Parts: sequence; C-alpha cells; structure tokens
Amino acid sequence: MTHWLKTTAQTLFSKNQHSSKLTRSSSIRHLTAINNLTVDIINSILEKSHFYSQIIKNKEPIPKVLSDKVVANLFFEDSTRTKFSFEVAAKRLGASVLNFSPETSSVNKGESLYDTLKTFENLGVDIGVIRHSDDHFVESLKTKLNFCIVNAGAGKFEHPSQSLLDLFTIKEEFKKLTDLTVTICGDINSSRVAKSNISLFKKMGIKVLLCGPESLLPPPQKLEDNCQVSTLKEAAKVSDVLMFLRVQHERHQAFELSIENYNNEFGLNHNIINLMPTNSIVMHPAPVNRGVEILDELVEHPKSRIFKQMENGVYTRMAILDWLYCNEE
Amino acid sequence: MTHWLKTTAQTLFSKNQHSSKLTRSSSIRHLTAINNLTVDIINSILEKSHFYSQIIKNKEPIPKVLSDKVVANLFFEDSTRTKFSFEVAAKRLGASVLNFSPETSSVNKGESLYDTLKTFENLGVDIGVIRHSDDHFVESLKTKLNFCIVNAGAGKFEHPSQSLLDLFTIKEEFKKLTDLTVTICGDINSSRVAKSNISLFKKMGIKVLLCGPESLLPPPQKLEDNCQVSTLKEAAKVSDVLMFLRVQHERHQAFELSIENYNNEFGLNHNIINLMPTNSIVMHPAPVNRGVEILDELVEHPKSRIFKQMENGVYTRMAILDWLYCNEE
Amino acid sequence: MTHWLKTTAQTLFSKNQHSSKLTRSSSIRHLTAINNLTVDIINSILEKSHFYSQIIKNKEPIPKVLSDKVVANLFFEDSTRTKFSFEVAAKRLGASVLNFSPETSSVNKGESLYDTLKTFENLGVDIGVIRHSDDHFVESLKTKLNFCIVNAGAGKFEHPSQSLLDLFTIKEEFKKLTDLTVTICGDINSSRVAKSNISLFKKMGIKVLLCGPESLLPPPQKLEDNCQVSTLKEAAKVSDVLMFLRVQHERHQAFELSIENYNNEFGLNHNIINLMPTNSIVMHPAPVNRGVEILDELVEHPKSRIFKQMENGVYTRMAILDWLYCNEE
Repeated sequence: MTHWLKTTAQTLFSKNQHSSKLTRSSSIRHLTAINNLTVDIINSILEKSHFYSQIIKNKEPIPKVLSDKVVANLFFEDSTRTKFSFEVAAKRLGASVLNFSPETSSVNKGESLYDTLKTFENLGVDIGVIRHSDDHFVESLKTKLNFCIVNAGAGKFEHPSQSLLDLFTIKEEFKKLTDLTVTICGDINSSRVAKSNISLFKKMGIKVLLCGPESLLPPPQKLEDNCQVSTLKEAAKVSDVLMFLRVQHERHQAFELSIENYNNEFGLNHNIINLMPTNSIVMHPAPVNRGVEILDELVEHPKSRIFKQMENGVYTRMAILDWLYCNEE
Repeated sequence: MTHWLKTTAQTLFSKNQHSSKLTRSSSIRHLTAINNLTVDIINSILEKSHFYSQIIKNKEPIPKVLSDKVVANLFFEDSTRTKFSFEVAAKRLGASVLNFSPETSSVNKGESLYDTLKTFENLGVDIGVIRHSDDHFVESLKTKLNFCIVNAGAGKFEHPSQSLLDLFTIKEEFKKLTDLTVTICGDINSSRVAKSNISLFKKMGIKVLLCGPESLLPPPQKLEDNCQVSTLKEAAKVSDVLMFLRVQHERHQAFELSIENYNNEFGLNHNIINLMPTNSIVMHPAPVNRGVEILDELVEHPKSRIFKQMENGVYTRMAILDWLYCNEE
Repeated sequence: MTHWLKTTAQTLFSKNQHSSKLTRSSSIRHLTAINNLTVDIINSILEKSHFYSQIIKNKEPIPKVLSDKVVANLFFEDSTRTKFSFEVAAKRLGASVLNFSPETSSVNKGESLYDTLKTFENLGVDIGVIRHSDDHFVESLKTKLNFCIVNAGAGKFEHPSQSLLDLFTIKEEFKKLTDLTVTICGDINSSRVAKSNISLFKKMGIKVLLCGPESLLPPPQKLEDNCQVSTLKEAAKVSDVLMFLRVQHERHQAFELSIENYNNEFGLNHNIINLMPTNSIVMHPAPVNRGVEILDELVEHPKSRIFKQMENGVYTRMAILDWLYCNEE
C-alpha cells in the first residue's frame, strides 16, 4: 500500500472491496501509463494513427470498429480538447458515447468514485476514458474494473494519450524518430505531459533537454538517462522541437515570476524563435496562456504545430481506442 | 383536483392550458406507475428483459427497434444509474438521446416545467424519461403531452423502472416468482422504490416483510395485503431477498440514529448475513451508503446482487422502451 | 476595426492572430446574418424545410446527408429550444453532435473563446452552431475558422435560424408570402429575433408593423422601408400575424411597467384577440412569460402557432444544415 493510498484512499475507495468475484479477463487492455507499453505497441499506434489520418483527409468511409460498443467519458477535472477529442474519435469509429459530469450525478448523494465507476462497468461500458486529479487513482483501477481504461490525465503523473499524439506529430513532421532532440520548457515537476513525454521519448531514443525555473525542474540525480538540463537559449539552437508547457495558474497560485519576466526567461519570443534551426518546430499541449509561455503573435507562427497537435489527437485517439478494443496482435 | 395540485400547481404548471387542441393518440403508452400495468404486461417486460440480456451476453447484433426515434432524458434531480441506464438502453436500440439539464436551459429565463416539456414534444421527442422531485407531477403529464412518458423517479411516490428491474433480478435468480418472501428494510415512507416494489410484488403474489425505524414505516391500517411488519432478525431467517434502502441524508437532515447504531439495528452486518438461508440474496437500489445500510465489506459479498441489479437495469429498460414504442400486443 | 472590436476584442480574441496559414476554402457556407442570404437561397431553405416536414410526418426514412459529419453545439448562453432543435435536426440527418458547455471546459483554465473555437476546428468539426452574448462575435468568426458557422443567437443583433423558421411557419399557414402584414410587438431594440425578422420580411416583401413601449422602438429615422410604428389595437385589426416578443427580464432589470400594465398595453389579451381577423395567427419565439406578453390562457389558443413554431424549427434547421454542408447549387 503506497503512501497516497494511506492518505487518500478513504475518499476514493471504500476500504475492503471483495475482489474475489472479479471476472475480468486478463486479456483486457488498458492505457494508463507509458511505461506499460512496448516499443512494438507504440509503433503500431503510430501506424494506426497515420492510417486514420489518411482516411479522414481523403474522406473515405471510416471502419466502424467500435459499433455497438459504449465509451464513457468520465472527467472529474475540466477539459475541452481531450474530452471532445476522445468523443469525436469514438463516434467516428461507431461507438456510443456517455458523457459523465460529477455535478449532476449521484456523487452529490455521497456516492464514492469506486461505486460510480463500478456502476458504469455494470451498465455495460466497454471503454472508460478517465481524468482525475489524483496521481495514481486511474492506474490503481486496472485490477478493479472489468472494462478497458484510458488514462486521460492523472494528477501530475501521466497523460499518455497526449504523449502518443505528440510523438505522432513529431513522426509526421520529421518522417523519423532517430537523431532528434526535443526540448521541454516550463514547470516539469507538475506536468503530467512532461512526465509521460520523457518516458515515451526515452523508449523511442529521442534526446530530451529540460528548461525552466530551477525549482520546477527535477534534481540532477532524478533525471532520466535521455534528459539533460539546459538554458532555453542554448536548447533553441540545437532542438528539432521546442515544446512549451502551460503555466498552471491553478496549481501555482503564487507563481514567483511576473508574466512578462516569465516569457523573457522561459517563454517563446522573437529572440528565441530566431535562434531555432530551419525545419524545427514549436509544440504546446494547450491551452496556451498567450503572452506567457508563448507570445500571442507566435501561437500561429509557421513553425507552430499547436493546432496540428489537436488535429492529430483525434487520429491518435482513434488508434488508441482501436488498439484497446481490438485484440488482434 | 388533488391536494398537491392546489398547493404546487402554480410553480409546475400555468393555470389554464387549453387541452382542446391535443391530438394525442389514445394508443400512446406510458410507464408512470406500477398500478397501471397488468400482470400480462409485466410478464412480457420480464420476458423481453431476458431476451435482451441474452443478446448482449452473446454479443449478437441488437435489433434497432428505435432507429430514427428520439428519446429525451429529462432529469430535474441528480442521477447516475437511472439516467445512464436509459441512455445506454436507448442507444443500443438505435435511438438518438437528448440529455436535458435544467442548469443551462431556458428554465433560467423563467420557463415553466410544462412549457419545457411541451417544447420537447414539439421538437419531435418520441419517449421522455422524466425524474422530478414532485410526487405526482409525472403521473399528471400523461394527458398533457403527446409522447410516451417514463417515470424515472417521482418524489416519494413511484420508481417503476427500478421495480421492474428488481423483479427481473429476482426472477433470474430464483427462476420463479411464486412462494417468495422479500424483506424491504429502511425508510419505507420516503422511498419511491419501496412503494413501487410493494405494489409490484403484490400484483405478482410475492410476500413482503417491512423493517425499519417505526416512524419510517406505514401505520398498520395502511399496510398492503401482502405486507407485514417484522424485525430484521426475524425477517432475515425467512426471506429469499433482503432488500435494503438508502438512508436519504438529503431528505432526513436530522436523522435520529447515529450511523453505527443504524447499521446495528436496521442494516446488513455479519450477524444478519449469517442468519440468511442458503440461496437467499441481498439487494439495494444504490447508491449505497457504505457502512450505513450495508457494511462496506458486505457490498460485494457473494450474496449481493447490487451490481447485478445495475446490469439488469439496462436489459429491463431496453424492454421498457421497446414495449412503450412498439404497439404490437 | 469596428468599435466593438476596440472595446471587447481583448476578452474575445487575442490581438494578433496570424491569418496567413488559413486554408479555408472560399466555398464554405455560413449562416450568420439574414442580409447575407439571397432571396433564392431563402426560397430554397423554405422548400427544403417543407420537404423535411413531409418526410417526418409521413415517417419516411430520413436521408442521412450528414453521416460521418460532426456538428458542435457551442452555446455560451442558456438555451433549450434552439440547442435541442439543432441537436435533433443534426442527428436526424445522421451527424454526430458535440455539446459544449463552458462550465466544465478549459475556459475555466483561462482559455480564450478564439482558442476554444479553433480547437473545435482542429478536432474536425464540420458545422459549429454558436450562441454568444456579444453582438458581432459570431459574424466576425467567418474569416477565422475553417468550418461552417451557424449563428444561433448573437447578442441583440441576429438570430437568423429563428427568422427562417418563423418565415416557414407563415408560408405553411398562408401558402404565400405576398400581401401579408406581420406585427412585431415588444422590446424591438433589444430583440435579435425582431431585427433578423425585419430584415428577412423586408427581403421577402412582407409589411411590418412595430408596437411597444416608445423607448424600446427604433426612432422613426432608423425604420426600415417595410416598417411602420402602430398601436397594438390598430395593428391587431389589420395583421395576418401578431408576433409577440419575450420581455427579457434579464436584460431589463428595472423594467418600468408592472406585469399587469404591460399585458394591458402591449400584450395579448382577450380584447386584442377579439380584434384579430379570421385566419390571422399569433406567434412568439418562446420562452413565453405567461401572463406578461400573452395571457396564460391564450398561449394555446386556436390562433396560436407558438408550439407549431418549435416543430417547424426542427424542419427548418434540417434544411439549414443540409444547405450549409451540401454545396450543390
């Protein structure tokens, strides 16, 4: 029993669920953390993402691989992009989608999270797309629920579908994953996107440079093998991708830097963009704080792939849903 | 004009709707109260529930009996189970589903409930699934609206789809409805589930024992023929089903018993479960207050059918929607 | 740069979006304002509305002209009728529908409206149905977004789909649009319905009489050619249609007339209805303040087409969506 369970388990779970009656097939797939994926699985998700991108762009009929299946969007934190991205992906593949909001549910009658999710299991949900503020809650569900789980953002811990769409965006841009350097700039310690991306890029042999205020970077002894700390200026000169993270005002109520100083030191501005090599690109998981991480007028700069990431997100999530449900390989 | 209409009609309805123009076909079916159903109809809903359960379990293609039909979920009280259960059921049968929330509607511009529902009628809704806190509101709508109405929970009065899924769960378990005793334990007076179940069990010849704090039980002279009051201990020894009701904290702000005492006297605990006969089962309409009506560790006990009830709810609601719309018998 | 942009642009848009990368096809259709429509287009929408009304009434199979298409309902103001009307219309034509609510979105993380809409563009939305309190916001989006836009109500400015369904209701009633007089009564100055209807009726050669408290009517020098100011009594005697507008309590917190006086002077009551010619009708965009613009007992009077307007709204919105997406003419 890890630390978080000791402190938060009472509100998340009830104490002693009998698991003896679980009939969950061991062949059920989940996407809860990057480290559970093999390189082969990752490559097959990239290929499927490309396959679906071509079908949509060519307006070919979409194979309804999830027809008669039910996907539940279970978002316990606000979301626009991720929630609707999964909804579009699921509906394009022929699934029915349930959109759960805690506000108008029996959560108001005191129902626990575990019982809420168990309810969806018994309603016949095939895939649950779950976002929750707790770092480890989604991961812990895998052994408790009899449907496929997608982690759509867990605390400061993991956001694997975002990382896979980022990787797909990079692959589509450079037509390769070897000999690439990606800089991630911002609050690395609080960012689930950063953590998932560092894991994924390590697996795929991509070098990572980390920039940001020192207090928001991992200490040297905790850096992954493929990571080095750098200044943004130095990183900009040698990176194929500059990926900026959102300053999470809701997590850092008393952020120490003024907006202007943040952008000068750790954001995208004209000085930085002029240092970047030809063919290098800018990424951001969005929503962007315009003027903070990225100057307003640079959000749609020719180097920016920020909106392209959103488009690719739908293809990658179609690939993820397809992979989750279709046990073919 | 009954008492409730005199007191609450102004907020629910406007005073003098002309009904002269109603073109409502007299053949429209509704499910508003158990007492409107014949034993034949109940049996045919049980059979259809079984039929759909087999189709889903065997992953056979689901007949799209509601294709091109529109089902509106009109919930004026919070719900997880019932709302999503109807949504899954309707979508599986091929219907489109509209999810109405009063929070973001013209109810904020002062629109009355009657006008809101009349709007859905004119938008072309075929079936409206309605939950409302008023005891008689849904029943009263039958003569006013030109679409099939399902009462998805009305005040303290009726919750017929819950009762039908409970009956289906009992039938599936015991393969019969004769010679059975069901105990209902808790706040009988405030429970729409209890009231609908008592009516339904009476119709089907099932004996009912009622347990609970005396102030929450009907007075002897108001007991239905098939009902007797009992202690939980005595009832546990002779019942095929022990059905616990949720302690509705939101209705009993100043509930007189502590949580621990409630469970000792009127809840499921190890003493009680040890008194139960082999093959007897535990039911609860959920959400369960774990530790109150049922000890946390007993919610998923082998005798519990609580999550099975949720699964069966989808099959029974498919049967209900099918019966409502398909005037074949 | 118009005045409103100077004052409100910062909250709506960021300042310097690069538009150089817009690949928007110039053939994309929008419905943002009545004045952008030709008489031919209007007539073809009326014909298509009639076509869909017949299909629905005769329960014929509905052509799925929007299958595999995605329609997003993007409502930044409350709505029941318009939102669900578009949802029913889109689903009947085979589209998937996304229902966006600002309350549970990244708008809570400070995301701008422009970025929210740009997100939906990149998620692959084909048609966006947008309601917003700003008078000109929706109109201004046309050059910035790469999907079809429907203005579903913009500030005090335009509500073109409401006007088209009103026109369709009049055409279905009188089987002609020539030699007709329509009276619009109420707060003309704040009403987007009034403004869109005046534009549309002018285009189609329908004479308009305006009634209401003097301070809520346009000054004589600003009247459109086809408009005259009248008293309600005089107008009632000569009009084919009396169209009442909702008193918008949320816009006029300190409305000068009492409810009773308002109805006596500017509302529908027995005196007024008795002055109306045979075959003339009453309309209202709804929601009605029963007892204010229209006496409660007259809302469903035989002359009223208020609920018929809601029914026709679905047919007209099917026609609008069909016209928007299907570039055939």
